[in-house]
Amino acid sequence: MSAVNYCSACGSSRIELTVPDGDTLPRHVCADCGTIHYQNPKIVVGCLPEWENRILLCKRAIEPRYGLWTLPAGFLENGETLIDGALRETLEEAHARVDPGELYTVISLPQVNQVYMMFRARLLDREVAPGVESLEVKLVTEDEIPWDELAFTTVESALRDWIARQPGRRPVPEPELYVTGDSA
Amino acid sequence: MSAVNYCSACGSSRIELTVPDGDTLPRHVCADCGTIHYQNPKIVVGCLPEWENRILLCKRAIEPRYGLWTLPAGFLENGETLIDGALRETLEEAHARVDPGELYTVISLPQVNQVYMMFRARLLDREVAPGVESLEVKLVTEDEIPWDELAFTTVESALRDWIARQPGRRPVPEPELYVTGDSA
Repeated sequence: MSAVNYCSACGSSRIELTVPDGDTLPRHVCADCGTIHYQNPKIVVGCLPEWENRILLCKRAIEPRYGLWTLPAGFLENGETLIDGALRETLEEAHARVDPGELYTVISLPQVNQVYMMFRARLLDREVAPGVESLEVKLVTEDEIPWDELAFTTVESALRDWIARQPGRRPVPEPELYVTGDSA
Repeated sequence: MSAVNYCSACGSSRIELTVPDGDTLPRHVCADCGTIHYQNPKIVVGCLPEWENRILLCKRAIEPRYGLWTLPAGFLENGETLIDGALRETLEEAHARVDPGELYTVISLPQVNQVYMMFRARLLDREVAPGVESLEVKLVTEDEIPWDELAFTTVESALRDWIARQPGRRPVPEPELYVTGDSA
């Protein structure tokens, strides 16, 4: 849980970690004005942009994992739908325009308070270029994926899903959902 | 966007709504300590608990929509997986134990900065009872759904999906995802 030293509503420093009435978990509560400062997981949303038998990867120009390869994705913003967010991140990180498809991979990441949600997407053209958060972008075939230089295990999972569904690799299954890290 | 009057890190009242370097959207930034106060959508997660040809509904004992019917669902908490959250809400609101199935309905709600995610679930027994946030719980058949007394349009969407997939209603389709409210 992130530190809350002061109340963002009234400025008081009398912040108590306590379970509010009717609640079941401790929250940061202001002892002066009563404001409850909830903290909840964030959504990371993005695309697996495809062009024929290739997929678009971006080399990170920012921390964490500077210099490693990822799929275009980032935090969903207020006022956005999931698809809006996925398209925005793909445009920002790779100047890529895509036609979005189904929601493809859903991964709970409770250790970092995130849920990772990736859409399949078809590139509308090959005119891609690095955005400010990318050093380089490239379209790779399965054999060209830099497995040892991927930024996140979520990216590896999404790419393994993509490979498993390539025509000829095995009968292409129906869209599936992968919710990993779940205890159930 | 919620009001940020004071910095939760240093207590300063010098909060400016500005686009940080390298960012694209205005954020609440502390002019004294530099902390950026991000605000992002929350996830509402829950279950469609099934028992034979019936589904479990809960009558809300809290605002908003006090007295109207809903499916067990609530905000995903830090440190939880999606399924953990869905099971917890189902237990809290209806004392119901379920075996969770596939992710069933995903709805973007950009107007309230939420994403609604519901899992199909099989009740392990009929021993259900209202939790503190419910006035009443009941197992209803399709014909008994109180369409005019549902709390949220998301609940209506999830129930209509459930009906469409009942055996005999039409060939049961593969699991699908409904991402509505999207502009794409």
